[in-house]
Amino acid sequence: MFASPDILVLFAHLAIHRSKINRAMIDAISGLERVVFHDLLETYPDFYIDIEREQALLRRAAFIVFQHPIYWYGAPAIFKHWQDVVLTRGFAYGEGGTALQGKQFALAVSTGGLPDTYRADGIHRYPLEVFLRPFEQMAHFCGMRYLPPLVLQGGHDLPEAVIAAHARRFRQWLEDYRPGKATGAHKE
Amino acid sequence: MFASPDILVLFAHLAIHRSKINRAMIDAISGLERVVFHDLLETYPDFYIDIEREQALLRRAAFIVFQHPIYWYGAPAIFKHWQDVVLTRGFAYGEGGTALQGKQFALAVSTGGLPDTYRADGIHRYPLEVFLRPFEQMAHFCGMRYLPPLVLQGGHDLPEAVIAAHARRFRQWLEDYRPGKATGAHKE
Repeated sequence: MFASPDILVLFAHLAIHRSKINRAMIDAISGLERVVFHDLLETYPDFYIDIEREQALLRRAAFIVFQHPIYWYGAPAIFKHWQDVVLTRGFAYGEGGTALQGKQFALAVSTGGLPDTYRADGIHRYPLEVFLRPFEQMAHFCGMRYLPPLVLQGGHDLPEAVIAAHARRFRQWLEDYRPGKATGAHKE
Repeated sequence: MFASPDILVLFAHLAIHRSKINRAMIDAISGLERVVFHDLLETYPDFYIDIEREQALLRRAAFIVFQHPIYWYGAPAIFKHWQDVVLTRGFAYGEGGTALQGKQFALAVSTGGLPDTYRADGIHRYPLEVFLRPFEQMAHFCGMRYLPPLVLQGGHDLPEAVIAAHARRFRQWLEDYRPGKATGAHKE
């Protein structure tokens, strides 16, 4: 049905052997022909990112996903370094920087804290989406459409069944993606 | 007047040779006896951070400053990695994690865009402080007092005199710091 992979999942985790959630998510999407799964820390453990390779992967994708746990209100550092060195002027923005225009972008993230810790009277004091503004605006600045994130919260203590259901939802979310259209998870 | 350095300035820049602003700021504070200046990327170019060393520096400081340019709505990646590996449970938060309690924290940052690009009708769409929420909340979560950032905006095209004045202001801001009190730049 799809001639070539059109979904790029960029992933990073500092201790994947300890992550039930991300492991289950990765297993759930393995074998999907539309998906290119790319583990940034496995590929670039010393942070020396191959910029041309990354830009080529981005050009081929229509839907770009950052999959990672939330640490300190953001992504693992390799994502920030990837942004800083791959999303260059003339590629992602500025004169001639149209490579990402019209693509879609979303986060697939997990948090240790439960949803009610992300509110004014919770220990994290702000809704999760507040901490995701830098990603939202990155997408917007590059001319991409920012789709609502796929989120699983409370990762420290979730039943297996909840994790399994989330992994299936992740797979479905990617399978439902249609170029130029929002995915099923997108409510606007 | 001060028995030992009590201000820790953590710094990172991806191309310091091209930064007039940060170069001027660094020159302005060199020689201040209260200040420990620590270039994270120079110290850890491969991102292998010495956690014990960093935690020891933090323990000795009363005022902790992140000095960096804003790229993609945040700090250079080394800061995020530093947060993820240095600010551990049992040190910075959680049971027994009281090492940073009562200290003060602030950002000293510069942006390429002018202030009017950071608003709803500007290209960056949100006030700068929105993008700084992850740092504000990091400080709060560790029991530190988050002071308003020292900011210089429009870095791509600022007159020398403006940069020099900002560098002096940075020096004064650090010199004015008193333990347990807000600095002069702090308006509440």
